[in-house]
Amino acid sequence: MSIKTQPVLTLEGARTALAAAEARAKEINVPMNIAIVDNACHLIAFARMEGAKVTSISIAIDKAFTAAGHRAPTSIYKENVWPGGPAFSIWNSNGGRFTTIAGGVPIVKDGVVLGAIGCSTGLPSQDEDVATRGVEAVQKTFSTKAKL
Amino acid sequence: MSIKTQPVLTLEGARTALAAAEARAKEINVPMNIAIVDNACHLIAFARMEGAKVTSISIAIDKAFTAAGHRAPTSIYKENVWPGGPAFSIWNSNGGRFTTIAGGVPIVKDGVVLGAIGCSTGLPSQDEDVATRGVEAVQKTFSTKAKL
Amino acid sequence: MSIKTQPVLTLEGARTALAAAEARAKEINVPMNIAIVDNACHLIAFARMEGAKVTSISIAIDKAFTAAGHRAPTSIYKENVWPGGPAFSIWNSNGGRFTTIAGGVPIVKDGVVLGAIGCSTGLPSQDEDVATRGVEAVQKTFSTKAKL
Amino acid sequence: MSIKTQPVLTLEGARTALAAAEARAKEINVPMNIAIVDNACHLIAFARMEGAKVTSISIAIDKAFTAAGHRAPTSIYKENVWPGGPAFSIWNSNGGRFTTIAGGVPIVKDGVVLGAIGCSTGLPSQDEDVATRGVEAVQKTFSTKAKL
Repeated sequence: MSIKTQPVLTLEGARTALAAAEARAKEINVPMNIAIVDNACHLIAFARMEGAKVTSISIAIDKAFTAAGHRAPTSIYKENVWPGGPAFSIWNSNGGRFTTIAGGVPIVKDGVVLGAIGCSTGLPSQDEDVATRGVEAVQKTFSTKAKL
Repeated sequence: MSIKTQPVLTLEGARTALAAAEARAKEINVPMNIAIVDNACHLIAFARMEGAKVTSISIAIDKAFTAAGHRAPTSIYKENVWPGGPAFSIWNSNGGRFTTIAGGVPIVKDGVVLGAIGCSTGLPSQDEDVATRGVEAVQKTFSTKAKL
Repeated sequence: MSIKTQPVLTLEGARTALAAAEARAKEINVPMNIAIVDNACHLIAFARMEGAKVTSISIAIDKAFTAAGHRAPTSIYKENVWPGGPAFSIWNSNGGRFTTIAGGVPIVKDGVVLGAIGCSTGLPSQDEDVATRGVEAVQKTFSTKAKL
Repeated sequence: MSIKTQPVLTLEGARTALAAAEARAKEINVPMNIAIVDNACHLIAFARMEGAKVTSISIAIDKAFTAAGHRAPTSIYKENVWPGGPAFSIWNSNGGRFTTIAGGVPIVKDGVVLGAIGCSTGLPSQDEDVATRGVEAVQKTFSTKAKL
């Protein structure tokens, strides 16, 4: 079998996620950089809200990059990447883009990672909260469609 | 005088430009990567349309970066950057991000550059056409306000 | 609203900060690299005093970059970036330019960050002391004008 | 002989050059980024004049870097770096910092290169004109002192 098919996140799907994340960021009053990437870790959509930090632009993009590529929220690493952990220093990989700070969350359908959202400017816990809202919003459209 | 004030492009303004560029790209049937940056060359908004090239993501961003920073469309360089031209090899500057291919166009208000749009995937002439539509759309909102 | 206005630090303002920092460095007899950036993290002014360390040139510039972009002194991170902290490894972001060593201090007017000073060569506490003098000197010119 | 002595440009010398370059830039009404480096290619002083291009910051620094390291004005390369020339593609060396666009000029005393000035924002010919004024100003202080 030389070909397979795979589900791919669209720009429309990415924007659904972005809009929900943006709404949540407004709700908690923390302007954010919000990045959505596909399953190949490539950028689909991005927005910098008024007041989001300039130094968080690349952090948001790299959180999404990491969550999509390693297929896990960037908040999970903890002691695995601390001194003594088996993945200590992994943040240095991928040209320094691998991010082990909360705020990158994969977008998943039926156990398959379709992409990820990365958020940055707030506390990492706030960034993850905002990213999660984006993920939930787009994932809801998957199940809605599945029901039809 | 230790402080001056200057106009700054908002996310809303960037999205006005992005939407118009996207509409034009659909009209000519060439999906594009579309990036909008501020006057300091930092990303505000980005979209990759269905079918836009993966290797054009960074080209679009770098075209916007160059048009905003050097305050000119990226289409102007021509013989100035060819062998024998006074700026030959300038594409190598800024860590290789300086782009001398058409498709980056500054957003200008009263002679002041507020940012730029960069588009990529089509022919450079198509990329510039699409970027120009985005620029025109956001610039129209400036003059409307000026009339009020 | 497609445009907003914001205050911007001038070269004159940057030099006021630089001169005061330099005077303080002489006072404590620790020659320094002193960098001033704007609110977009771009360099405005720089001086390497006689005897300042060569490897501290980029450290000074990156401290200013980080303090301006993340809008906080680079001395604040402490346990947040140590193993177990929520922002552990953040120093790796922004192409490795994010600096969590004291000596970068934002320049603020009415709660708005206009840029930052970064100093390096001494102990981090000395670097921060010198940067702070620079910040205070330029901030004094803001309030003087506000009173007029 | 395990040790030699060499003349070294001071911060005061660098500032003499910078001030003269800045004055010339004002005279021709082209705001510039102006960088001065020592004989080891390391930055001593930098100023971004109001209105100088953001994308010219690193170009100015890299012009000074190249002029000091290769001990020649960056305007001399011409056909040597064009296709067919013996140094074709040299701009790619030194991590892409080698600059073959006019505007970097060495500071020389008795045939010894002490550093260089790099200017950027104008036409390359204007950048070189401004850099040359800076070089002349600081070189004049050498000969004055030599006469004493």
